[in-house]
Amino acid sequence: MKTHTLTIVGVGLIGGSVALGAKKRGLADRVVGIDNQRESIDRALALGAIDVGFQCEAPAESFGEIIVVCTPVDQIVAQVALAAHHSRAGAVLTDSGSVKGTIVREVERLTPKIAFVGSHPLAGSEKQGVEHASPDLFQDRLTIVTRSPQTDAGALERISSFWQALGSRVQSMSPEAHDRAVARTSHVPHLLASALSAYLEPELQPLAATGFKDVTRIASGDPALWSAILMHNRPAIRDGLRELESCIQRFRRALDEGNGDALTDVLALGKRRRDDLGS
Amino acid sequence: MKTHTLTIVGVGLIGGSVALGAKKRGLADRVVGIDNQRESIDRALALGAIDVGFQCEAPAESFGEIIVVCTPVDQIVAQVALAAHHSRAGAVLTDSGSVKGTIVREVERLTPKIAFVGSHPLAGSEKQGVEHASPDLFQDRLTIVTRSPQTDAGALERISSFWQALGSRVQSMSPEAHDRAVARTSHVPHLLASALSAYLEPELQPLAATGFKDVTRIASGDPALWSAILMHNRPAIRDGLRELESCIQRFRRALDEGNGDALTDVLALGKRRRDDLGS
Repeated sequence: MKTHTLTIVGVGLIGGSVALGAKKRGLADRVVGIDNQRESIDRALALGAIDVGFQCEAPAESFGEIIVVCTPVDQIVAQVALAAHHSRAGAVLTDSGSVKGTIVREVERLTPKIAFVGSHPLAGSEKQGVEHASPDLFQDRLTIVTRSPQTDAGALERISSFWQALGSRVQSMSPEAHDRAVARTSHVPHLLASALSAYLEPELQPLAATGFKDVTRIASGDPALWSAILMHNRPAIRDGLRELESCIQRFRRALDEGNGDALTDVLALGKRRRDDLGS
Repeated sequence: MKTHTLTIVGVGLIGGSVALGAKKRGLADRVVGIDNQRESIDRALALGAIDVGFQCEAPAESFGEIIVVCTPVDQIVAQVALAAHHSRAGAVLTDSGSVKGTIVREVERLTPKIAFVGSHPLAGSEKQGVEHASPDLFQDRLTIVTRSPQTDAGALERISSFWQALGSRVQSMSPEAHDRAVARTSHVPHLLASALSAYLEPELQPLAATGFKDVTRIASGDPALWSAILMHNRPAIRDGLRELESCIQRFRRALDEGNGDALTDVLALGKRRRDDLGS
């Protein structure tokens, strides 16, 4: 299934990688990039990720059969609404935001007639910008696509095929199940990595070795982007934090009681589950 | 300064790396390894890390001018006492344990006459065993050596030079300052990585991407070794956990209040300090 025009709104790391991946695999005749930063468009053009680019106002013919909104999460709903306004009959829209519940609910409320499917490719990096984009960013990664009561089955099918064509595995779940899951796999870990990084006084930094650097690596992510992500998933993050704290409580109790065997048991569970993940 | 006989008690990842490093740099005429596991001695001999090895009972001439005890932390005090019993006049003893307060205090109480300097090379890996040892494990890393009121200045000098000869930078501090520091740079992060790994239900594991793997990597460390380390540093870990929780509390308050700017501020502090650490 080849698309005539593929439209990417927000040409950063993710949007640029979708564009490059589609180019490399011949998934579209033409890739149009829309971004509110002239610099990102120029870079994407220079990299050959997009064929044509627009800043802000894009003409109606820029909006193709597949439109992927890859902006920061707090701009996705507005950009989807704008694209929906211009899009042709039969177009399907998706996004790449790392929260889904608030976005899918808002999009369905504001533009109930368009074929929108929420997506979250579990790929990325603490680096930002189209200059770090890669056509193979999604290769062998997992992309979650969301299925709500309003989701059009044909659109879900087309968006799933699109991510698969970019090399990704695809799994569908409800927006709420997605948000609960990523609170645990991504948002709570991000918050902890950031807290650990913040609490280490500068004079102790020379003592931080590889382990500390690994634990805190994701804290280098863009604060404004992450603030928006976390703000969109507050209830699930609160639940996740509460569960994590009851885990930490088991450690604290073992330490307080001087119970080395109990401590070994919790550490062994952590090791078992970490070993299951692979390197 | 070349040593005639260098003695390594506990020939695992660290002990094996000390031995290989000393060989490579010609720091000793003879390296003797002592380990309670026959397998470790055989592997260390096969790797050329040691010239001669003993299981359990080692003759007095095995104990050279420099003795490095690299066993798990809960065996260090006993092994230092044993080595001190056999060691010749003028010998200096050190260890490589990642806690220092309890060890230095106990060694000074049990064997007040020997020249002992606590050491902690900030190097290692979640992997164990002499088969992962490297002659360059300490190259460009930091080794902490401890200075207590009882520490002999000449012994401190010799042990510092020894680690420097292995390629390490050396910093001296009190055992208590060391333990407070590593609680923050290593022990609390380990505990959190383990808790995060343990709390992720197996059915959510497919959604764990690179970020989660980075945060939890150190949770793969050996549970019994880590339990012993954490048990030896309980007060400092409790303090560290309490401080970290007040950091997490700032995140929680920003989330509860829906204050995106406050959240961005704490994330920005975390990013600034993480960026300072380098990759």
